[in-house]
Amino acid sequence: MASQYPPSLRFRLPACILFLEAAFLLIFYFFFTYDRQYQHLQRDPALYAAFQDVNVLVILGFSFLLAFLKRFGFSSTGFSLCLAALGVQWAMIVNGFLFHFSCGAVEISLQSILEALMTVTMMLISVGAVLGKANLMQLIWMAVVELTVFGLNRWIAVAIMKIANHVSLMHVHLFGAYFGLMVSWKLYHSSLSSRVEKEGSKPTSDTFAMLGTLFLWMFWPSFNSVLITEAEKKWLAVCNTYLAIAASSIAAFSVSAATSRHGKLTMAHIQNASLAGGVALGFSASMIHHPWLAMTLGLAAGAVSALGSGFLKKCLDPAIGLHDTRGVHSMFGLPSLLGGIAHVILIVVDSWEDLSVLGYSALMEAGALCLSMALGLIGGFITGFFLTFKFWKAPPVTQVL
Amino acid sequence: MASQYPPSLRFRLPACILFLEAAFLLIFYFFFTYDRQYQHLQRDPALYAAFQDVNVLVILGFSFLLAFLKRFGFSSTGFSLCLAALGVQWAMIVNGFLFHFSCGAVEISLQSILEALMTVTMMLISVGAVLGKANLMQLIWMAVVELTVFGLNRWIAVAIMKIANHVSLMHVHLFGAYFGLMVSWKLYHSSLSSRVEKEGSKPTSDTFAMLGTLFLWMFWPSFNSVLITEAEKKWLAVCNTYLAIAASSIAAFSVSAATSRHGKLTMAHIQNASLAGGVALGFSASMIHHPWLAMTLGLAAGAVSALGSGFLKKCLDPAIGLHDTRGVHSMFGLPSLLGGIAHVILIVVDSWEDLSVLGYSALMEAGALCLSMALGLIGGFITGFFLTFKFWKAPPVTQVL
Amino acid sequence: MASQYPPSLRFRLPACILFLEAAFLLIFYFFFTYDRQYQHLQRDPALYAAFQDVNVLVILGFSFLLAFLKRFGFSSTGFSLCLAALGVQWAMIVNGFLFHFSCGAVEISLQSILEALMTVTMMLISVGAVLGKANLMQLIWMAVVELTVFGLNRWIAVAIMKIANHVSLMHVHLFGAYFGLMVSWKLYHSSLSSRVEKEGSKPTSDTFAMLGTLFLWMFWPSFNSVLITEAEKKWLAVCNTYLAIAASSIAAFSVSAATSRHGKLTMAHIQNASLAGGVALGFSASMIHHPWLAMTLGLAAGAVSALGSGFLKKCLDPAIGLHDTRGVHSMFGLPSLLGGIAHVILIVVDSWEDLSVLGYSALMEAGALCLSMALGLIGGFITGFFLTFKFWKAPPVTQVL
Repeated sequence: MASQYPPSLRFRLPACILFLEAAFLLIFYFFFTYDRQYQHLQRDPALYAAFQDVNVLVILGFSFLLAFLKRFGFSSTGFSLCLAALGVQWAMIVNGFLFHFSCGAVEISLQSILEALMTVTMMLISVGAVLGKANLMQLIWMAVVELTVFGLNRWIAVAIMKIANHVSLMHVHLFGAYFGLMVSWKLYHSSLSSRVEKEGSKPTSDTFAMLGTLFLWMFWPSFNSVLITEAEKKWLAVCNTYLAIAASSIAAFSVSAATSRHGKLTMAHIQNASLAGGVALGFSASMIHHPWLAMTLGLAAGAVSALGSGFLKKCLDPAIGLHDTRGVHSMFGLPSLLGGIAHVILIVVDSWEDLSVLGYSALMEAGALCLSMALGLIGGFITGFFLTFKFWKAPPVTQVL
Repeated sequence: MASQYPPSLRFRLPACILFLEAAFLLIFYFFFTYDRQYQHLQRDPALYAAFQDVNVLVILGFSFLLAFLKRFGFSSTGFSLCLAALGVQWAMIVNGFLFHFSCGAVEISLQSILEALMTVTMMLISVGAVLGKANLMQLIWMAVVELTVFGLNRWIAVAIMKIANHVSLMHVHLFGAYFGLMVSWKLYHSSLSSRVEKEGSKPTSDTFAMLGTLFLWMFWPSFNSVLITEAEKKWLAVCNTYLAIAASSIAAFSVSAATSRHGKLTMAHIQNASLAGGVALGFSASMIHHPWLAMTLGLAAGAVSALGSGFLKKCLDPAIGLHDTRGVHSMFGLPSLLGGIAHVILIVVDSWEDLSVLGYSALMEAGALCLSMALGLIGGFITGFFLTFKFWKAPPVTQVL
Repeated sequence: MASQYPPSLRFRLPACILFLEAAFLLIFYFFFTYDRQYQHLQRDPALYAAFQDVNVLVILGFSFLLAFLKRFGFSSTGFSLCLAALGVQWAMIVNGFLFHFSCGAVEISLQSILEALMTVTMMLISVGAVLGKANLMQLIWMAVVELTVFGLNRWIAVAIMKIANHVSLMHVHLFGAYFGLMVSWKLYHSSLSSRVEKEGSKPTSDTFAMLGTLFLWMFWPSFNSVLITEAEKKWLAVCNTYLAIAASSIAAFSVSAATSRHGKLTMAHIQNASLAGGVALGFSASMIHHPWLAMTLGLAAGAVSALGSGFLKKCLDPAIGLHDTRGVHSMFGLPSLLGGIAHVILIVVDSWEDLSVLGYSALMEAGALCLSMALGLIGGFITGFFLTFKFWKAPPVTQVL
């Protein structure tokens, strides 16, 4: 933990961070201006409150969700802040050039920061899979690559496949989970170090993780509804998400009690599966017009997530050596996949009479899902491959003391 | 802690939870639809922000308020989430059938979830009294019964006694405290187990409880004002509650320093009495037109609560065997009673000139107070009686590991 | 820790607190009424949401920011609540008489509570410097004096020097840091007790401090923008503050990794310097029209703060005996000074063409900065001098158990 590094290496991490920040600064200087129309302010006076909900969800919720490891609990809150601060800026740059570039300049607004924050969610999901297996410098480069690939993914979905903007951002859970899994898989094979020892949790760190989970739970309705502009649909998204997330918590508790020995509740299962309803509703929260449908979807997502958390992890870990520290596969990957499939089915049912529309839009949504998953897997594989190079091993330890 | 249970019993808890959720789902399927008028959205664009304040207060504030026990701190956050998720759905059903049922269907909206959340507060207050003496299955059935009885109580108050809707919801503190006390009294007599050992707290768990207390403290103005529709009265309720809760914190600190040995502050007193001002203002926050009056009421409530927390607990516990884990009697019961009496006096003073109105409305408010207290005590007694049956002892341990 | 005090002294703390509260109550009774115009409500329906952000920042953010000491972590959350509850009331009185007194009465509104809360920030900053060196009674009198002196400072700035109201409130960081430093300096020389032992932190208390830091980080945009009435400028203030605080976090991480041994991150540096960008932007958040400028200022403030946190503390502590428990000098003092200077430069650049305006307003802003710093230093010196009297030593220990 306190091994000596040659002084020449000690400066690599700060130099890397400062280099990135300087690059961001130059890009902002040459290309970015504030939007002078303030359109988003006219639209919704309550936008700022919802923005703050998402801000708390991303910055505080994920920081503390990742604080569940006894040994890394403390550093993970620090790492998350650093990654989020860098990630927001880079995501604004990527989104700006891909979506808002015109006449040589990019106009940014509160909406830009909001969308960047939502993209950063994805990166923090991937960090959850990799936690404890990578140092801060590896995580930073992973974040930069991941945000770029996802930006391209979203551009293809919105510009070519004509997916709605707010739906395209809900692919973050799917993309983030599978990207993180692939990186974790590559890193795991290169370093079979003291994994078991590192992974212990203790009541205090678990309570901190519960704090993060509760913030995610409470503000998930804001996450699913903030980008929807029609008041009626926004309201539907809030209510549906709330009911779905409540139902998925119930599923989490019952599956956890049923599958564990002695009928005891396992905190990790509950933390993982409680959010599943919100994740699953991401795509279709504003389309569902019946409370029971939202609850059913939430219940199914919670059950899938809790079962996955218990069984899948046990199987995948020894079988193909896939080690997922925070269990992001069952927490975000599976519920998001389920939600995506439910979204396609809902579109089919909704536009059953008009067959010409039906085929096209359902196909596009299904295609976008496949694209996100494919790009996430491939991008994660390649990124993981580069992160196993010796170059990254040398940098100073990045544990926070 | 790890005693073996026969497998047949292990599935009782998950089966019970799933059965309830399935029943909720069926009821939602057959009777509940979304309100298509969106009236609440037109009324107030900032409603969602206040809804989130109440959400944080209920889900996070109470979870962590109950996390003060060294041994149960961790499980209580889990239990709270499970009970809140189940409770919100059941409260929506009870409120829906009693207040919004027409033409064979119940129309729900964001307002329904909000009112259900506020009702859930009551159930979590009762849990505070019972904590450490009941398992999760007992708590769940207690919650179901309690929410039903309170729904009836509120229906009598609103439909028959013509109490304003937002005032009727403020009876949650009174009802919850006395219901919980009676259940606790019955359970305590049936199992005089290792109570002393279980009740210790330690700095870390006390800091978590302080976190919960601060969230309750900060968002109490939202709780007292969210259901008031007139902007002017809403604003009065916010300011009055803020001043009252500040004054009651001061009372808490001075009483705690004066009554404890060596003049040291006792954290439990402070956590209990800081909120008293907000609880006491519940009924009359929007009626008080002078800042000093709100502050005086807050100060009195804080003093009553802190003194009660110190002396009453010491007397009641050995005398009649009333054991109140979180001290909800002094935290919510006494301040709410004080606030109710102050409310009646304020109505008398306000309508002094018009004697015909005076008698009726003051009588009705006083009657509603008595009704809540009586139903709380009787309901709690009966519920506690049923919870002492052997049937409940067998289920799997519900400690979260 | 449990030394016996004579009973006569035991009542001094509660008596002092109750005396203050009674005095507040009388002042409110004779002079304060609610504003019946509700102008602030017409102005902005989303004001309450921003008010709650600031409330969370002040009450929760600072409480937990100060909870970083192993031995005092727990009591500091209690002390903060007591000081904040008293401070808000006293600040309302001071602000009321200085700014809103007319026809023998003071009209208060939600805006009054908001401004009082922002003033309380200053007092909590000073507490950060003094923590562990003063008991609760000393802190309370320090708060009363400090809030009075700052009220006068702000009155001179607004009424005589014609500084904008929201800018005048941003002097809190500068004033609070230097006031606290002087008090700390005087107290330190009078009691060179077991300082080193008291100052240790441990992972759990550091994680609580990180929780406080994150809340400050997330809601700083609200703090900088809440008092700005023009929608366009408010929006600029939010975006600029967010970008600046993100950039200053990056600076904090790189400086911390570069200056510490073995390249490890130091949590205290990161907590101190992450907020620097927000503090520095306080004065000019609504004036900056280019994202890169806000980021540069944030980056500079973060670097200054992190370097100051590392080096300055190491030099000042042994050299002149200036002991700053929480490091408020580098956390709030230096960034605020930097922000003030940048503000003056921005005014000069903005009004370069109109030389007649230029000289005057730039001069006034610079004068207000000097005034805050001078009054902070002098006020702190005198207050610290009085707090070293024997009178204060006797009162009961104020540790929360």
